[in-house]
Amino acid sequence: MKKTKFKQNEMKKFNKETLKIIPLGGLGEIGKNMTVLEYENDIIVIDAGLMFPTEEMLGIDFVIPDTTYLEQNRQKIRGMIITHGHEDHMGAIPYLRDKVSCPIYTAKLTAALIEAKAKEFSIKKPDIKVVASGQKFRLGIFDIELIRLSHTMPDELGLIITTPLGRLVYIVDFRIDYHDPKEKDLLNHLERLGNDGVLCLFLDSTNAEQEGQSVSTIKVKEKIESIIGKAPGRVIVTSFASSLPRIQSVFDAAQKYQRQVLISGRSMKNTIDIGLRLGYLKINPKLLVENINRIHNLDKRKLIILCTGSQGEEYAALVRMAAGEHRQIKVEPGDTVIVSASAIPGNERAIANTIDNLFREGAEVIYGGEEAEVHASGHAKSEDLKLIIKLTKPKYFIPIHGEFRHLVRHAQLARSVGIDQKNIFVIEDGEVVKLTKNGGQISKNKVSAGYVLVDGLGIGDVGNIVLRDRNVMASDGIFIIILTVDTKTGKVLTSPDIISRGFVYMREAEDLINKTRQEALKSLELRNKNYPVNWTFIKNKIRDDIGEFLYKQTQRRPMVIPVIIEV
Amino acid sequence: MKKTKFKQNEMKKFNKETLKIIPLGGLGEIGKNMTVLEYENDIIVIDAGLMFPTEEMLGIDFVIPDTTYLEQNRQKIRGMIITHGHEDHMGAIPYLRDKVSCPIYTAKLTAALIEAKAKEFSIKKPDIKVVASGQKFRLGIFDIELIRLSHTMPDELGLIITTPLGRLVYIVDFRIDYHDPKEKDLLNHLERLGNDGVLCLFLDSTNAEQEGQSVSTIKVKEKIESIIGKAPGRVIVTSFASSLPRIQSVFDAAQKYQRQVLISGRSMKNTIDIGLRLGYLKINPKLLVENINRIHNLDKRKLIILCTGSQGEEYAALVRMAAGEHRQIKVEPGDTVIVSASAIPGNERAIANTIDNLFREGAEVIYGGEEAEVHASGHAKSEDLKLIIKLTKPKYFIPIHGEFRHLVRHAQLARSVGIDQKNIFVIEDGEVVKLTKNGGQISKNKVSAGYVLVDGLGIGDVGNIVLRDRNVMASDGIFIIILTVDTKTGKVLTSPDIISRGFVYMREAEDLINKTRQEALKSLELRNKNYPVNWTFIKNKIRDDIGEFLYKQTQRRPMVIPVIIEV
Repeated sequence: MKKTKFKQNEMKKFNKETLKIIPLGGLGEIGKNMTVLEYENDIIVIDAGLMFPTEEMLGIDFVIPDTTYLEQNRQKIRGMIITHGHEDHMGAIPYLRDKVSCPIYTAKLTAALIEAKAKEFSIKKPDIKVVASGQKFRLGIFDIELIRLSHTMPDELGLIITTPLGRLVYIVDFRIDYHDPKEKDLLNHLERLGNDGVLCLFLDSTNAEQEGQSVSTIKVKEKIESIIGKAPGRVIVTSFASSLPRIQSVFDAAQKYQRQVLISGRSMKNTIDIGLRLGYLKINPKLLVENINRIHNLDKRKLIILCTGSQGEEYAALVRMAAGEHRQIKVEPGDTVIVSASAIPGNERAIANTIDNLFREGAEVIYGGEEAEVHASGHAKSEDLKLIIKLTKPKYFIPIHGEFRHLVRHAQLARSVGIDQKNIFVIEDGEVVKLTKNGGQISKNKVSAGYVLVDGLGIGDVGNIVLRDRNVMASDGIFIIILTVDTKTGKVLTSPDIISRGFVYMREAEDLINKTRQEALKSLELRNKNYPVNWTFIKNKIRDDIGEFLYKQTQRRPMVIPVIIEV
Repeated sequence: MKKTKFKQNEMKKFNKETLKIIPLGGLGEIGKNMTVLEYENDIIVIDAGLMFPTEEMLGIDFVIPDTTYLEQNRQKIRGMIITHGHEDHMGAIPYLRDKVSCPIYTAKLTAALIEAKAKEFSIKKPDIKVVASGQKFRLGIFDIELIRLSHTMPDELGLIITTPLGRLVYIVDFRIDYHDPKEKDLLNHLERLGNDGVLCLFLDSTNAEQEGQSVSTIKVKEKIESIIGKAPGRVIVTSFASSLPRIQSVFDAAQKYQRQVLISGRSMKNTIDIGLRLGYLKINPKLLVENINRIHNLDKRKLIILCTGSQGEEYAALVRMAAGEHRQIKVEPGDTVIVSASAIPGNERAIANTIDNLFREGAEVIYGGEEAEVHASGHAKSEDLKLIIKLTKPKYFIPIHGEFRHLVRHAQLARSVGIDQKNIFVIEDGEVVKLTKNGGQISKNKVSAGYVLVDGLGIGDVGNIVLRDRNVMASDGIFIIILTVDTKTGKVLTSPDIISRGFVYMREAEDLINKTRQEALKSLELRNKNYPVNWTFIKNKIRDDIGEFLYKQTQRRPMVIPVIIEV
């Protein structure tokens, strides 16, 4: 006990007047963004996102950040700020309700999306304080000012956080829209901050690898309009449901070319409803086709279908249409499909399959993202990133929001515009940067920041063992041998029962199964009959022998499970 | 019987003087290329490739073409021609040995690679006739002339096939290397053919989506040289093992900058051995580091490591180095890694992970394929494709080697240079084009051309049922309930045994397991005790009841298997 107490005192001293920067998600990966800022007795949390599982995480629905550190420091948490309403920034909120409870500060649209999510989960409405860019507020020792940023969805917030050590600028998921007059104010503001002094800049690394500047959203709007203007028949547009400005562009084109718009796909409908209700979309109600069955009475040249499926998601509207599985909408020759989105890494195959199927149905498909000018990324590229760094002139620089190579490339950009190499911290989830008035460094101690897997109702209960078993069965199936034995004599009472799935096609493998039964009995025979039966030993022996036998016969390694039933 | 005979006669008449074009692989997909050409009693087969499994094909090693049609027409097969030595063109040969047996015509390097493969499989050396570009030979009714094409590996063959109906030009996996003086001869030759008359052109669609011309291989060579020239420490280069010209470039740079080269990775070593033996590589033997342990004595500035792993393959040399799992080679700050390859679709994630890991170890990594000028694709882009179509002026055009959208884009290119829409056949595997002197059409009848899955020693034994089971277990695991009952009384003798894997972490799920045992017994109780036990009915009932119960508890759907052991 004494020793621990001593240690805690030491820690306290060490942590005095120290700003700790602790990413719990989003650094070294794209997804589940969450950053913790801690100064003595105060913590604020920025974002609480989820990530989609990688290929190896079989059967997993989502991945959320490990919040052990926050749970251990519950009493310090003054609030959570959500920068915007994308899943990788706010999707974990419903799963964290029992773990991290604090007020959530975010803008109007994001608040509505979080509330809609809570409703979907049938959980209590979270404690949200709606704030807006330009607004200032205090959370513990942190003075926060919100700034307006451009992104693919409205209400993206940047943060200027004043701490006792200096000012932090936190900019994630943004691009610079040079045609937007408001952007000049932002750049001027950042320049003033830079002149006043910025301690640390946190900046979005997603597109740090890409040269040049953002594709103009005006060009994309014009391109979509031009395709719709020239289309010989129906136009089907798919996009991210949250991309309200893109959706507005589609409605603007509809107005211009006197087409009506049918909205298809639940998330698209919900987001457009919210967008309309809160005034982020301005749509002439006459443009909307409310009843899907009406589309068959409409002139094809007068119709646009705006739908989900831009990522090739299995049950999304466009994917079902492409596969001929949509009940009301059948894709036909003469249709023009615009895929107005880019691929989230990992979705390339599914998107390509959807496009192929659309072509098979005879449609013309316009795809190819930025190159085809039907999409503009929401993440700034190298030239714009350098501009922000040059304007803010930070002492320290931390690249955020990116896989490791993005962080490294971003660090290289920062160096190229004069940031001192030793003041750039390329860190990953769980690493801790400590800033004091004497300097900054990466701490030797890490905090827990792995993956928490969500599978059905289970949050975090599926771990390595369950995943390993799923992987083995996915690859070579399972092979179970049941031996019913007499408790007293140890003799096998019936021929071994064999249950196997995912290994071989059982109906054509009778010979193999019979041979395996014999092998199992052989393994059993080898036991020393002078001693009492050691079933654990026998089970292990059967597992090894049968595993080897099956491998020799098939070169597959199913999971072998011997079961002894004693009666 | 009579009816069948009549039909066969009809067929014969119908097929007289008809050229049938039957793709069994590679059309509507990238991989497992195989095209069958049939004219009355003669068949020739072009290529016999394998494909890597898609994400859904759990546990599958490879996919090969369905050769049922060839097996049914064994006696007609006059020979197989292999265009070059990539896996997607010759990888299926060892698996087809019992199904399609005929002489194989191919060039020297490809022959050596096929023989090496046969050795690896410990099978009889295939009957290979080594041929070369410029050579002419006859297979049944088909007169074949081979032409030299440029690709990422040497000895790529194009085919000019003269049939009773006219001349076919078959060009797959090629690019135009404008700096190569031989390319002019090829273009002249194709132009002469075009003037003489080409019935049908088959052309590589892989890069039909991409604008412009091929990236110059000279530029790539210069870029690699320049990186090696400037590198401050070791250089690690990864590339496809078969890319012998690229490998030659690395050795040329080594010679220029007086570095020695260590070759790491089995396939890289084997291919370089073959390349040296057959004279496709010219390497100063002094450049080679024969013993891997010697690298620790060498000046880092005097070393290049040439290795496998450009696709992020799990056990490849570079991947193990990047993960810190290579026994002899540890990546360090100061190392420069060149990823001189592009991603085969599906490998993007694995490659990105490898690059991230290399950066984590402190290396500088040069990646990005064509954009970074460290790779040049082996497939011609739109401008070059149009050139070939314009030169050969074919009556009919069939885009080959591509996913469906590539074929469609390629067809659009052909239309843009004057090929009549009705003479372009966009077909997929199993579809049959019939050409006669009166015209051409896509037949209403298809031939069997699905996937044949290779899993361990099994070729084609894993089908939908096994895959479906693997998918269910991969996603939610398996749950087996064993009930031991008295044969006579039907009474359960012991508490139900439960075996579960990949569903929940069993050690923390005792409560759930106990409840499930009770549910199983409940389902059993419901049987009508006045009648003899119907075990099938009871098993189905338990399966459904327990499935529902577990779903309610966990929102997961494991495979539920009730087992009744009667003693």
